[in-house]
Amino acid sequence: MITKPAGGADRRGFRRRRFAPPKRKLPTALPSAATAPLVHPLPPGSRGKLRVAVLGGLEEIGRNCTLLEYENDIILIDLGLQFPEEDMPGIDYIIPNVSYLRGKEKRLRGVIITHGHYDHIGGIPHLMPMLGYPPIYALPLTNAIIKKRQEDYRGLRPLNIHNIKLTDRLRLGNFELEFFHLNHNIPDSMGIVIHTPEGAVVHTGDWKFDYQPVGEPPADLQKIARIGSEGVLALISDSTNADQKGHQISESEIGVNLEHLVAKAPGRIIVGTFSSLLSRVKQLLEISERQGRLVALGGFSMKSNVEIAKELGYIQVNPKTLIDLRTIDKYPENKITIVCTGAQGEKNATLMRIANGEHREVKLTPGDTVVFSSSVIPGNERTVQRLKDTLFRKGADVIHYQMMDVHAGGHAKADDIKLMLRLLNPKYFIPNHGNHFMLRFNARVAESMGFPKNRVFIADNGQIMEFQGGEGRMSTEKLPADYVFVDGLGVSDETNVVLRDRQVLAEDGMVVVIATVDSKTGRLVQNPDIISRGFVYLKEHKDLIEELRHRVRKLVIDSDPLSWADTNYIRNKIRDYVGQFLFTKTEKRPMILPVVIEV
Amino acid sequence: MITKPAGGADRRGFRRRRFAPPKRKLPTALPSAATAPLVHPLPPGSRGKLRVAVLGGLEEIGRNCTLLEYENDIILIDLGLQFPEEDMPGIDYIIPNVSYLRGKEKRLRGVIITHGHYDHIGGIPHLMPMLGYPPIYALPLTNAIIKKRQEDYRGLRPLNIHNIKLTDRLRLGNFELEFFHLNHNIPDSMGIVIHTPEGAVVHTGDWKFDYQPVGEPPADLQKIARIGSEGVLALISDSTNADQKGHQISESEIGVNLEHLVAKAPGRIIVGTFSSLLSRVKQLLEISERQGRLVALGGFSMKSNVEIAKELGYIQVNPKTLIDLRTIDKYPENKITIVCTGAQGEKNATLMRIANGEHREVKLTPGDTVVFSSSVIPGNERTVQRLKDTLFRKGADVIHYQMMDVHAGGHAKADDIKLMLRLLNPKYFIPNHGNHFMLRFNARVAESMGFPKNRVFIADNGQIMEFQGGEGRMSTEKLPADYVFVDGLGVSDETNVVLRDRQVLAEDGMVVVIATVDSKTGRLVQNPDIISRGFVYLKEHKDLIEELRHRVRKLVIDSDPLSWADTNYIRNKIRDYVGQFLFTKTEKRPMILPVVIEV
Repeated sequence: MITKPAGGADRRGFRRRRFAPPKRKLPTALPSAATAPLVHPLPPGSRGKLRVAVLGGLEEIGRNCTLLEYENDIILIDLGLQFPEEDMPGIDYIIPNVSYLRGKEKRLRGVIITHGHYDHIGGIPHLMPMLGYPPIYALPLTNAIIKKRQEDYRGLRPLNIHNIKLTDRLRLGNFELEFFHLNHNIPDSMGIVIHTPEGAVVHTGDWKFDYQPVGEPPADLQKIARIGSEGVLALISDSTNADQKGHQISESEIGVNLEHLVAKAPGRIIVGTFSSLLSRVKQLLEISERQGRLVALGGFSMKSNVEIAKELGYIQVNPKTLIDLRTIDKYPENKITIVCTGAQGEKNATLMRIANGEHREVKLTPGDTVVFSSSVIPGNERTVQRLKDTLFRKGADVIHYQMMDVHAGGHAKADDIKLMLRLLNPKYFIPNHGNHFMLRFNARVAESMGFPKNRVFIADNGQIMEFQGGEGRMSTEKLPADYVFVDGLGVSDETNVVLRDRQVLAEDGMVVVIATVDSKTGRLVQNPDIISRGFVYLKEHKDLIEELRHRVRKLVIDSDPLSWADTNYIRNKIRDYVGQFLFTKTEKRPMILPVVIEV
Repeated sequence: MITKPAGGADRRGFRRRRFAPPKRKLPTALPSAATAPLVHPLPPGSRGKLRVAVLGGLEEIGRNCTLLEYENDIILIDLGLQFPEEDMPGIDYIIPNVSYLRGKEKRLRGVIITHGHYDHIGGIPHLMPMLGYPPIYALPLTNAIIKKRQEDYRGLRPLNIHNIKLTDRLRLGNFELEFFHLNHNIPDSMGIVIHTPEGAVVHTGDWKFDYQPVGEPPADLQKIARIGSEGVLALISDSTNADQKGHQISESEIGVNLEHLVAKAPGRIIVGTFSSLLSRVKQLLEISERQGRLVALGGFSMKSNVEIAKELGYIQVNPKTLIDLRTIDKYPENKITIVCTGAQGEKNATLMRIANGEHREVKLTPGDTVVFSSSVIPGNERTVQRLKDTLFRKGADVIHYQMMDVHAGGHAKADDIKLMLRLLNPKYFIPNHGNHFMLRFNARVAESMGFPKNRVFIADNGQIMEFQGGEGRMSTEKLPADYVFVDGLGVSDETNVVLRDRQVLAEDGMVVVIATVDSKTGRLVQNPDIISRGFVYLKEHKDLIEELRHRVRKLVIDSDPLSWADTNYIRNKIRDYVGQFLFTKTEKRPMILPVVIEV
């Protein structure tokens, strides 16, 4: 599960962006595909075949998107975002590559969203214009979150969005869909059965089995069993926690620990968590109510998600329990719970601002207990460590999940996966949602219970899996699945050069060398200019820069004036020379930008 | 524990640097302080006081260095390095700030090193010249590793280095030192008792209690008990794993699991670990020998550390067991163990090169089992995940420590700490070695067994703790402890500006705007030049650059020629204007470098 506070900063603290539609806008005015199926010439060799490709989520956590295609009909499941890797400085996030659909917009019958987390919905504002605003189908909470997020972006058409019920059957061209309830850590998470002419494909989305969930029913084992008994061609399922033994912890077990903490805390309880962990937030509200505490919410996304959940009836709480963060000083400290964003150390989220003393309403005092009720997303460990340091320094007591079960993951562990496989009894198993090694561990779980190895498909993003006559095979055909970067207002899959430059600049900085020469004689008009940033501390290296200037001057003066006909040649010469000189002196390799100005 | 392969790359894959002594070389020709104590005027107010300050390691894992001062005598314990944080691009590492010792070199009686890990020895090559090459005291393996590392740097004087024995008593001015054996995951780890006129201070270095260690005796409980019974003023002790319950796992328990893995592996076993985890490496050699496997070592530092350990008798193995990596193809695959560096995903380390298919001798095949026999250093999680992906893709089976105990930490857990406190019974307790929150957890352990809270000192780096008349107090005096960065050949504590620039460049790149104007008239001589790197993909944004050029041209033309007298003014105007323009268009804030060339 990956979340981004809708109104705040993501885990690297990037500032919030406003979205403008990309330049190459695709045709948008389409009738609803569900009501007006169109017939086009079939792609060669595709008649009578079910084609499945996961466009994002098979090689990473995030940018989830699965494509199913049968003859003229295409559906997508989820359109998520992925947070950038460490070697992608400046990138806001990565979204699925849907370029296979370019020109096929009319065959796209719908986009079904499994649940409201950003790694499943985050690509929607960016991709809907390219896809021609196909109909979106999801459960009410998911849709409410999608619509709320859409408001953050300007210049977009209204979404063509439809609430479904778990009891619905939805026909989309050749596909007929059913839905079933699963547990995760946000309500309205569901699995999807896609009945195709080739058989039923089940897509789980993110899931766990929780026999004692909080504020929602347990997973619908009966329906899953019924689906299984009717025959399942392929199961596409979540691999995130497949490397862990046993069953995932129940949300209600967490409740016992949280209740104990809340009961015994001498002063305020401040809980940092994801605003998208709505089951957790609901629990904290109920526990606080039972323990006679009032609850203040911190963080834009926290407040807006709770508002959505209250409106839809997912959270039912005495209106007096929820108070404004600005009023907490009116109450005794041991009557206050604060539930806020920022448990990942996100730069501008509430917990970070509280820790840094930048929060106007909440100043930490000894007696405060801060609980990290979330896991740490890989890559955020150092930031979270520093956040804990700061909290302790401000006098707070800190509880994190390694000390006590104050967080339950939302993903199936090995024994959950085994139960799902026994219930559905699929012919083919397609581990999904995770790094490649997680898929492998998921496959290992299946194989450990006798599932035939040759019917487990571990594919790559974009790789087509074909099903025909009840038989499946991994094909070698790959749909485009390269990264598509959201970088400020830009959406592009051509960012590699830019990223390489950013990496070089980050590591060793840069040096601009400007030689102004007479265009007729090729002679230097004045001393070369040297500008450097991020390379060395200039005040400590004046001699170095002076020597460099002197040497460039000599290089230009000594070079054959004829060579000036080719400024490329002389620029390369300067670049090589300066690079070598600076490396010898500093063992750093700044980016060298030689500029020759001819006047 | 943090390690850096001596001859390889560190965890971020920086290339290896050669060291040249810093420019401001301190006087170096000193007599050995131990043999010729010198008397200087005492600092005011310092007579009859023991002053203790931890210069590095109280706010981080790494750059360990503790200073003890009694009147004219100063000793240092450890001189380590720290790996850079994420917001320090390009930095090789951070070393302790010893500027308090500037001008006091003659009072420095010695540097004692607790063990041979880089977070305890890594500052030596860089700091010895500044400190005037004081005598270094350590156990033989530690010294051998220090000397080996010193060979990597050129232009340094030979170290003034001395082997001690655990039974030695060493007088250094007013201090008299004893040593005692502790377990860690490198042999020759020791604690130090510093007898001072104010009482005994015990410094543990990194430690755990291992009742069944491998290849070394258990910690010397008898000696520790004796020291405790004689009275201990203060205990300075490792906090790294204080937040974990129970006792640390024994190295021999790991052995059972590793032996099981080696016995049942169908093909080659490839174990990635730290070259500094010599106890682990020794085990793997012995297990392989028992299981009839030959062992090939991968990685420069792995080979050199094993060489050192063999020479000193720490590793005793049949000479036929160790084979050259280049010869492994001569033997059946199930007779081969490879022990190599790279379990943290270090760029050029052996395991990474094997995974990437860049290793000349070792090509992965199905049947290979890769074991990650190390923990993941916070910050490396994503890299290690990607490494596992690659290994699986190449057909290897992967075992990591979350699936099975194939790694034992080297640091005391809560119950170990309790035993140490009961054995030594110190009057004051100074949690050391860790982030601030780790120190807090260490304090919590002590307090949970009744240790008086006011005698636990949680200090910051550099903060002086004073002891006089048997009483200790935290003073407000702070010795300099700011970061000192090693950045290529440079060693500087003035790198903040450079780092800020690197961060900006990494995030949004930069744009150089060059306006060439007539120095007399202030008129543009030619169209402005625009150069950009790491900002946007230029081929997709030609229009943007063209518009920018046009606008800058207009800005310069429209500006009052008189203002050209002040190029700063016009440069700032260009910077502000271009910055604003580009932000509006892209929501990115590249670094703008305006250059005005007057010809």
